[in-house]
Amino acid sequence: MEMIRSNFKNNLHKVYQAIEEADFLAIDGEFSGISDGPSVTALTNGFDTPEERYHKLKKHSMDFLLFQFGLCTFKYDSTDSKYIMKSFNFYVFPKPFSRTSPDVKFVCQSSSIDFLANQGFDFNKVFRNGIPYLNQEEERQLREQYDEKRSQSNGAGALSYISPNASKCPVIIPEDQKKFIDKVVEKIEDLIQNEENKNLDLEPCTGFQRKLIYQTLSWKYPKGIHVETLETEKKERYIVISKVDEEERKRREQQKHAKEQEELNDAVGFSRVIHAIANSGKLVIGHNMLLDVMHTIHQFYCPLPEDLSEFKEVTTCVFPRLLDTKLMASTQPFKDIINNTSLAELEKRLKEAPFNPPKVESAEGFPSYDTASEQLHEAGYDAYITGLCFISMANFLGSFLSPPKIHVSARSKLIEPFFNKLFLMRVMDIPYLNLEGPDLQPKRDHVLHVTFPKEWKTSDLYQLFSAFGNIQVSWIDDTSAFVSLSQPEQVQIAVNTSKYAESYRIQTYAEYVEKKHVDKQNKRKWTENSWKEVERKRLKTQCTSYSPQSRYYCVNSFTATSAVGKRNMSPIQEEAGSEDIESVEISDCELDQTDSCARKNSLQPEASPAVLPSSLKFLIHGSQQLERRKQGLGFREITRLAPLGSHTVFNLIKCGVGVV
Amino acid sequence: MEMIRSNFKNNLHKVYQAIEEADFLAIDGEFSGISDGPSVTALTNGFDTPEERYHKLKKHSMDFLLFQFGLCTFKYDSTDSKYIMKSFNFYVFPKPFSRTSPDVKFVCQSSSIDFLANQGFDFNKVFRNGIPYLNQEEERQLREQYDEKRSQSNGAGALSYISPNASKCPVIIPEDQKKFIDKVVEKIEDLIQNEENKNLDLEPCTGFQRKLIYQTLSWKYPKGIHVETLETEKKERYIVISKVDEEERKRREQQKHAKEQEELNDAVGFSRVIHAIANSGKLVIGHNMLLDVMHTIHQFYCPLPEDLSEFKEVTTCVFPRLLDTKLMASTQPFKDIINNTSLAELEKRLKEAPFNPPKVESAEGFPSYDTASEQLHEAGYDAYITGLCFISMANFLGSFLSPPKIHVSARSKLIEPFFNKLFLMRVMDIPYLNLEGPDLQPKRDHVLHVTFPKEWKTSDLYQLFSAFGNIQVSWIDDTSAFVSLSQPEQVQIAVNTSKYAESYRIQTYAEYVEKKHVDKQNKRKWTENSWKEVERKRLKTQCTSYSPQSRYYCVNSFTATSAVGKRNMSPIQEEAGSEDIESVEISDCELDQTDSCARKNSLQPEASPAVLPSSLKFLIHGSQQLERRKQGLGFREITRLAPLGSHTVFNLIKCGVGVV
Repeated sequence: MEMIRSNFKNNLHKVYQAIEEADFLAIDGEFSGISDGPSVTALTNGFDTPEERYHKLKKHSMDFLLFQFGLCTFKYDSTDSKYIMKSFNFYVFPKPFSRTSPDVKFVCQSSSIDFLANQGFDFNKVFRNGIPYLNQEEERQLREQYDEKRSQSNGAGALSYISPNASKCPVIIPEDQKKFIDKVVEKIEDLIQNEENKNLDLEPCTGFQRKLIYQTLSWKYPKGIHVETLETEKKERYIVISKVDEEERKRREQQKHAKEQEELNDAVGFSRVIHAIANSGKLVIGHNMLLDVMHTIHQFYCPLPEDLSEFKEVTTCVFPRLLDTKLMASTQPFKDIINNTSLAELEKRLKEAPFNPPKVESAEGFPSYDTASEQLHEAGYDAYITGLCFISMANFLGSFLSPPKIHVSARSKLIEPFFNKLFLMRVMDIPYLNLEGPDLQPKRDHVLHVTFPKEWKTSDLYQLFSAFGNIQVSWIDDTSAFVSLSQPEQVQIAVNTSKYAESYRIQTYAEYVEKKHVDKQNKRKWTENSWKEVERKRLKTQCTSYSPQSRYYCVNSFTATSAVGKRNMSPIQEEAGSEDIESVEISDCELDQTDSCARKNSLQPEASPAVLPSSLKFLIHGSQQLERRKQGLGFREITRLAPLGSHTVFNLIKCGVGVV
Repeated sequence: MEMIRSNFKNNLHKVYQAIEEADFLAIDGEFSGISDGPSVTALTNGFDTPEERYHKLKKHSMDFLLFQFGLCTFKYDSTDSKYIMKSFNFYVFPKPFSRTSPDVKFVCQSSSIDFLANQGFDFNKVFRNGIPYLNQEEERQLREQYDEKRSQSNGAGALSYISPNASKCPVIIPEDQKKFIDKVVEKIEDLIQNEENKNLDLEPCTGFQRKLIYQTLSWKYPKGIHVETLETEKKERYIVISKVDEEERKRREQQKHAKEQEELNDAVGFSRVIHAIANSGKLVIGHNMLLDVMHTIHQFYCPLPEDLSEFKEVTTCVFPRLLDTKLMASTQPFKDIINNTSLAELEKRLKEAPFNPPKVESAEGFPSYDTASEQLHEAGYDAYITGLCFISMANFLGSFLSPPKIHVSARSKLIEPFFNKLFLMRVMDIPYLNLEGPDLQPKRDHVLHVTFPKEWKTSDLYQLFSAFGNIQVSWIDDTSAFVSLSQPEQVQIAVNTSKYAESYRIQTYAEYVEKKHVDKQNKRKWTENSWKEVERKRLKTQCTSYSPQSRYYCVNSFTATSAVGKRNMSPIQEEAGSEDIESVEISDCELDQTDSCARKNSLQPEASPAVLPSSLKFLIHGSQQLERRKQGLGFREITRLAPLGSHTVFNLIKCGVGVV
């Protein structure tokens, strides 16, 4: 169903209902661009840390506009063993709703716009008929404005026409305005004397003059008249004055309040859909969804926080349960039988054996998509086939059970290992961003950081390292790159060999990280004040894990039903202690496994090797976590990272552990 | 005529012809936004200097996209005493023409987009079918790329398939690619042996592999085969190898060259229209056209220079003769009889007495506009009515001649006083930006600079200065504003009175300018290098008025016909001397006249008082200027600014000076 400004209000209840009844939701966004800085290659370096990747995307992708949002809800009908699907395609645009509302500026990237244009994207629908929205802060401010006006008009006998800054004493009228104001007062006197006339339209005048009129009348006539500003057809503003009794005044007041409430709802607009998704606590599926999640939060909730850990907290509040189908498809048992994890290819692959195409029908009154005639890159369609992919893969997991199950629900424990882990595109040795705790920290002891003249090309690096056998190059910018060798032992040889080189410089990954850290510290020292600020912040963080700000996003009452209880958390004290430090310690043995695994697969360009921390963890996940919360350990949970690469979901199930 | 990507090439000759035969051109642009920083009020402060205004617009307006360009050409038909008009409405979009071409990012301002959407603007036409363009530097780079390729393939027996970076010795093949390359070589050996086959399609492979193939073949088979990269329908790139003799090779080479030339022309795209306008040297009319001119230069020529004076030089090269109808309408003899100078109102006003609506018809095959059903804010329509306004006003000037003339041509000396002066919106005492020399420098000795807490509003300032009679407030930002008093003598009283104030601070305009200058100097001292840079630049400027860069814009040969010879200038040496300094000296008397004039009119919000430097200057303008050029005085001409406000064109003509 196409959702635009003109039909949004009338159909919003259908969206609410679809979310309410759904087993899971699939989403997708289309943006006006991807990167306003580096090329996508540099934006997604193979050895980015999750922090670096987050900061790069935050810096270079958030000024674009998410202008189409696809939402597809899936509800399982057990009688007919099929899914009923409702698809919504929202066009979104920050249309200023009044002269004082935020005038959003957003960036467009020509290549992205051209790409969408070639797909038949309808820009007129976005710009002429896109649904407006407000983030939480803008909504709060607007609500306050209305509240302030209302409290002034209700309290202490003040009247509706008092502007927020009106003084209670005679206002000082500039010399050149005195004549004008005197004339207005004269007219009002006439109105009050005259029994026949009830209303008086003043001539259009300037904003300053209107202010003077409001102030003068508030002081001269505290009761008995109602003052209102209207607009002519030519958009000139003028004041209407009417004589009213107390009852009439109240009726007008209520009318005004109802109208304001509706205006406010209209202004919040599309954000109400995101609030409904957040409040539902339903599983939300996306394909390669990190950017979608970041944009959604940035545009409809709040500017993205500086720290990755804070971003994780906010995300957990907005989207309590996320599942990324690109990560799922790149993970065992799918990894070995799925070559191409791009959405279109994945959808095709999952129609063939050993997978089964899912039985999905459109709900009555909703248009259906035909996957044979692709409508890729329409957000609603992409969300739809993302949902199809999820169903096929989830059902496939059921085939390993004994007895096998044909239908695996969105509530099944089989899929929990994939929760809240977002695919990290083109990172070689960290398959996902872990929203539920610290990220993997592979040692990268086979990686070199190389700087060189900007004329160098990949082939020059291949030539430089030709003695070292297979290498892999990950460009950082014009003059630097990471080079990974096949053997960690070669690293020191390369560094030693390069000591007297003039045109290039080689350091180990560890040296590079250390130097970067020191540089960052020095930069912070520049102004002592800002340094002190950082220190204060650090101390503060040790005391509380939830800032008042992030608490704000949790105020909506979640209708929690599952054991994954993060969205039920309330702000709690976090004890700073040794355990906190232990949580980021990882044994050498574990990291070696990640490394070797990454290297083995290093020739695959996009399908990063992905293995999920599993063991039996996910079976005890919910209750254990809940227990820890009660003990007051907060968000940074003290879960040791499980061994990688060995015990995957696939193995686990083959070992005969019966999970449903 | 609507001009989009799909019909541009076929209709470009019509544009060229229309420009060629025209008496004058009118232009207008539509942008994706106005200001990405301050509000328009702060962007256009009433006491901006021309430098400040230029810098603000450059900083806050140039990241938007000019995406619709209107061009309307007017040719006078003396037989029927009417103008024949050809109108073109170009949709412009920086569609990347290849994978390596610039990927332009541009900003959109929601309010501007919403405004255009309400006018029925077709965004799909821009984004799906906009005409691409390149600025001069991009064009140069692309041309060089092609030239380099060609010179390599022509010179020293090298072959067409040599990539620019190919080495002349055996290339080093990475270990893991050796097998792949060996296989390719084997296939080519087969092709060469086999007499039946002429062509060989290789499998699609990576860019790196293609490079290795090119390099290997260039070394192994310097003659006898032709190598080309093609694309499959799925956009996968693959290499085609064919056996060719010398003749066939040359034919292919020429074919390729012609195709490249066409590609290059397509890429330069809409910029060719602007080049044609520049080369024609025709009078170009616009309404409030400073932003149009800045955007046109920025988008189709070069990033705007840092200095206003350099901007003036570049502008004079791109648009040798400009006329701004908003300035014209705000200047005597029009000022007194035209109340509202907004384009729509002006057009209506000029249909009534004492003006005569001009006789204008569309050329055959060109659609006509109906001014009764307004299509305002379509660039082509706006350009059209701008042209109408110009004709009416120019003809009106003819009515003062004896005998009166009904038709005043675009070549008449009567309109020369309005040349190359662009309306400065909302500046109180400087009506225009003078492209032909230094700008007016009013003393502003009745102006105060006030800083205050950010809670203050205009009324607080009125209150503060209530003892001083009429004042005028020009907001700079949240915490500062200029306040102009009616009497310069009051200034010192205000400053003295404020000495012990705590919440606000008052300084004279002169003190403010001085302090700003010092601040700027201090800022420059921060890094000594950058300071030296400035110094070097300053010295350089004293020696040459034309930088090599600005010379670049003048290479196109102008077909000069009139005496206004600026566009014929070639780079010349400028003598630094006392005359140069004299040129910016203005007598107190002159400035007082400007001031009092400005103050008198200070209540009109938009129609700035505009008076043109006139005296008899414009009569001797052309020849005098040309003479000075010959003497090597260069651009900064040593014209003393004429007395303001007294001798206007109107007076001049009334005084009986016969000008045609």
